[in-house]
Amino acid sequence: MGHLEATELAVMLLSLGLLIGTARLLGELARRYHQPAILGELLAGVLLGPTVLGTLLPEWQTFLFPKEGANAVVLEGIGTLAIVLFMLVAGMEVDLSVVWKQGRAALKVGISGILVPFTLGLLAAFLMPTALGRQADADPVIFALFLATAMSISALPVIVKTMMDLNLYRTDLGMVVVSAAMFDDITGWTIFAIILGMIGAEGPGGVAMTVALTLVYGVLMLTVGRWLVHRTLPYLQAYAHWPAGVLGFIVTLGLFGAAFTEMIGIHAIFGSFLVGVAFGASPHVQERTRMMLDEFVSFIFAPIFFASIGLRVNFVTNFDAPLVLLVLLLACLGKFAGALLGGRWSGLPTRERWAIGFAMNARGAMEIILGLLALQAGVIHQRLFVALVVTAIVTSAISGPLMRWILQQRQPHRLLPILSPKLFVRNLAANSSREAIRELAALVCQQHELNDEMIEGLAWEREQMTATGIGHGVALPRARVANLEEPVVVVGLSEAGVDFDAPDGQLAHAIFLLLTPLEDPAVQLDLSANIAQMFRDPQMSQRVLRAANFTEFLAVLKTVEPRNA
Amino acid sequence: MGHLEATELAVMLLSLGLLIGTARLLGELARRYHQPAILGELLAGVLLGPTVLGTLLPEWQTFLFPKEGANAVVLEGIGTLAIVLFMLVAGMEVDLSVVWKQGRAALKVGISGILVPFTLGLLAAFLMPTALGRQADADPVIFALFLATAMSISALPVIVKTMMDLNLYRTDLGMVVVSAAMFDDITGWTIFAIILGMIGAEGPGGVAMTVALTLVYGVLMLTVGRWLVHRTLPYLQAYAHWPAGVLGFIVTLGLFGAAFTEMIGIHAIFGSFLVGVAFGASPHVQERTRMMLDEFVSFIFAPIFFASIGLRVNFVTNFDAPLVLLVLLLACLGKFAGALLGGRWSGLPTRERWAIGFAMNARGAMEIILGLLALQAGVIHQRLFVALVVTAIVTSAISGPLMRWILQQRQPHRLLPILSPKLFVRNLAANSSREAIRELAALVCQQHELNDEMIEGLAWEREQMTATGIGHGVALPRARVANLEEPVVVVGLSEAGVDFDAPDGQLAHAIFLLLTPLEDPAVQLDLSANIAQMFRDPQMSQRVLRAANFTEFLAVLKTVEPRNA
Repeated sequence: MGHLEATELAVMLLSLGLLIGTARLLGELARRYHQPAILGELLAGVLLGPTVLGTLLPEWQTFLFPKEGANAVVLEGIGTLAIVLFMLVAGMEVDLSVVWKQGRAALKVGISGILVPFTLGLLAAFLMPTALGRQADADPVIFALFLATAMSISALPVIVKTMMDLNLYRTDLGMVVVSAAMFDDITGWTIFAIILGMIGAEGPGGVAMTVALTLVYGVLMLTVGRWLVHRTLPYLQAYAHWPAGVLGFIVTLGLFGAAFTEMIGIHAIFGSFLVGVAFGASPHVQERTRMMLDEFVSFIFAPIFFASIGLRVNFVTNFDAPLVLLVLLLACLGKFAGALLGGRWSGLPTRERWAIGFAMNARGAMEIILGLLALQAGVIHQRLFVALVVTAIVTSAISGPLMRWILQQRQPHRLLPILSPKLFVRNLAANSSREAIRELAALVCQQHELNDEMIEGLAWEREQMTATGIGHGVALPRARVANLEEPVVVVGLSEAGVDFDAPDGQLAHAIFLLLTPLEDPAVQLDLSANIAQMFRDPQMSQRVLRAANFTEFLAVLKTVEPRNA
Repeated sequence: MGHLEATELAVMLLSLGLLIGTARLLGELARRYHQPAILGELLAGVLLGPTVLGTLLPEWQTFLFPKEGANAVVLEGIGTLAIVLFMLVAGMEVDLSVVWKQGRAALKVGISGILVPFTLGLLAAFLMPTALGRQADADPVIFALFLATAMSISALPVIVKTMMDLNLYRTDLGMVVVSAAMFDDITGWTIFAIILGMIGAEGPGGVAMTVALTLVYGVLMLTVGRWLVHRTLPYLQAYAHWPAGVLGFIVTLGLFGAAFTEMIGIHAIFGSFLVGVAFGASPHVQERTRMMLDEFVSFIFAPIFFASIGLRVNFVTNFDAPLVLLVLLLACLGKFAGALLGGRWSGLPTRERWAIGFAMNARGAMEIILGLLALQAGVIHQRLFVALVVTAIVTSAISGPLMRWILQQRQPHRLLPILSPKLFVRNLAANSSREAIRELAALVCQQHELNDEMIEGLAWEREQMTATGIGHGVALPRARVANLEEPVVVVGLSEAGVDFDAPDGQLAHAIFLLLTPLEDPAVQLDLSANIAQMFRDPQMSQRVLRAANFTEFLAVLKTVEPRNA
């Protein structure tokens, strides 16, 4: 016992705390500025790694994150565990049945979306190996295959999220994109697994054996494995502790799959990814189990892995601007061309072809993981790796805005980003709906340059047409205001309750006065629907009353914010 | 890079998968037989460790769980991480405000419940060191202090769970027990931290410094730390990603606390435990965040730790029956005497005094962790450790049954354990309530020796008095039957729906025919309340209709089973 001395244990705990804490903090900051969270997580590693901390306080850096010895080994082990679990969760987003259902259109877009960038990558790697920084001792074929795969991969989780944000997930276009991306991901990772098999071939029997075992494992997982998993889940769900029974089952199988693929000479992540796909979108994995695994893995484990990338690579000295531009250009070119051709092939309108291109161009974490494995296997050097990381982040960040622009798709307005502490009354004095409207209108007109009598008049007129108590203790008085740029919502809470003539006869305890632009009637509908959904639980207005101030009020609403799926 | 070779990574993933999988499996089996899950988790280690696998397949055992090298280090690192997180979660169960609120009674029981067993432990250690197996080279004072602490500790999570199972958690008796146990836990761990400081004193400045730092850390955490945490949480909840923002914050602080206490020369778990207490039962940590952390840590991480105990210790060769009996006797004696005196001191009735003794006697995981640290620090040998493990399991297992017996407390009947695949009709043919009752009565009478006409008559008579449609698509026809030993429930689902005259006008899709003993009217109430709570969500009966068979039906109900708190 006691291989780890007390100091080593302390350093382990401290370094993990620093990695998770910094990565989460910068991840939140990145999200605040509408950037992918992974950007913040990588930056955390850059801060704690050789790039910043190593330059400022080199002894501290080596003390906290030593490159040799027990602590380095433990961090590598935990990092590997993190990425294995991350790929398990990523695999669980792949729903093979959706791919089959979408049928031809998805398949055409998928095939073209992988074939074109793959070919482009191959050509580029052979035509300009020096510009792309092929290592002198690297095998040209393996290098070309890798670059081709890197150009073809896409990031399913990012794509799914973008589609949800734009309310496109359940549309035909959304399903084509998502299933094409699923197809590309499975194909891409399989090709990459074979490349790794070709390099490593540490397994018994050399390259051919490794490749054969990889394919057999893949096919088995997606057929027999998938079937067995779907048969077992309801039993676990019914008879084992819930949700831990199912959770333990998923994690255990994921680890076994990872161990198997690592043992046959390809990387562990391939195994857990395919186990994830086998669980797929099984209806027997309850939303809550899925969410629990996803949140824990994506926000506690994954940041350890992504931050630790910054520990290994100096992003400043390895930043090679021409190379970054070249890789970024190749990546975008390949995916756009592939999607446009695929879209044409399946007869989609031009606008949608471009939208598909923008969507599938997002590379996210997948590109980074791929690059890291290639770096570790000695296929690429650090400069190309940095270029791939930048490509991953840029393509993910521009994907959503470009799609919104090309489709002229409006994002539904949501309540939470509109709320403001200045437009919040903890204790309304009002006893009637008229007084409540007056009180809220007066507050909003202090803050915005509006005429309070006009606002009150509009809202009261509207109220007299149909009362706005929607039940469950909520009222949504409203006015459509000319020359208003953005919607404004002012909130008042009332312990005693105010009568807004709700159908369920309850007094309103949470009153939202919605002021929306006269020209855009949809905004009012968006906000009403959003609020009604948050207050679906009849207990919600009582929970809201427990908030002592605006921050606590926002915190309560946060817990019921619908994840638009 | 690459400190871990491919084979080592594969072994790491495989061994973690084996530990989690086996521990979860045996943990579930233990629960099935009403034993603590931790028993199963320890047995998993016994199976995979030297005791069984090491005897049957020694090479496999050393390949999978080597005692030296990178894999041993990684497993130790992950095991430490697991126990640090486990203690963080355990700390979060301590609600200091409850302790203050309960006031004198709790304090008296708490003080007496720790003082008496502590004194008994001290005396025993000095009077019969050989029988208790003090090591020849062990410091007598440290050994005695350790044994005294081991006799005084209790397992808060086990106690809370027992109280909930017996529906006592929110009663006066329950609160006295729980807050006394919280008091004892904090005191016990503080004493133990000081003992560790006395042994190790690896920190700067020797023993005095370590003890001083420990106390300062403890006091700061429970005052300033607690205050800061409670101020920060609403902001994170409101403005960061939810629930990951709060989750990351808790884990990061837990790791920092653990690193600090490890660095000053006491063990890491003390630091994370106190961070957990600082979060305490903060109303700002939402139930869902808490549940997520708890399930993941208790069912994925903790099993790794507990199973790995079995890897280190041979439970067969180190089982010393007289020592086990002696320790078990001392432990029970101390706690019973302490609780009886404390109960008398605060003027509680005799029956309740005994109940408190039985409750606080449960030692669970805490005793095992304490013992392991003492074993690692060289204070005790493996035989005493095994005796402590057995004591922990036995006291936890007998705690609930003994309490139930002394209080004559009935456990409310719950639906799920009563359901049976033989008493389930997936598609009712019935079109009316009368027909539905006839169909269900006929099925139940095939399975049980009952007269179907009599049952149907009773239920229909009852139905005519007041209709049993309770709304949300559920009906609960019922009959109280003479000479019935145990309640019987037969379930029918109907896609078309059957009219049971529900107040909300909906047809019933899920129909539960409740047959309960004539002599015990409370059973019917228990079951009705239990079912009504599960169907609180109006969508629930639609979800139930998606179940293709009994197992899937049970799986759906499982997700809404109330955790009786």
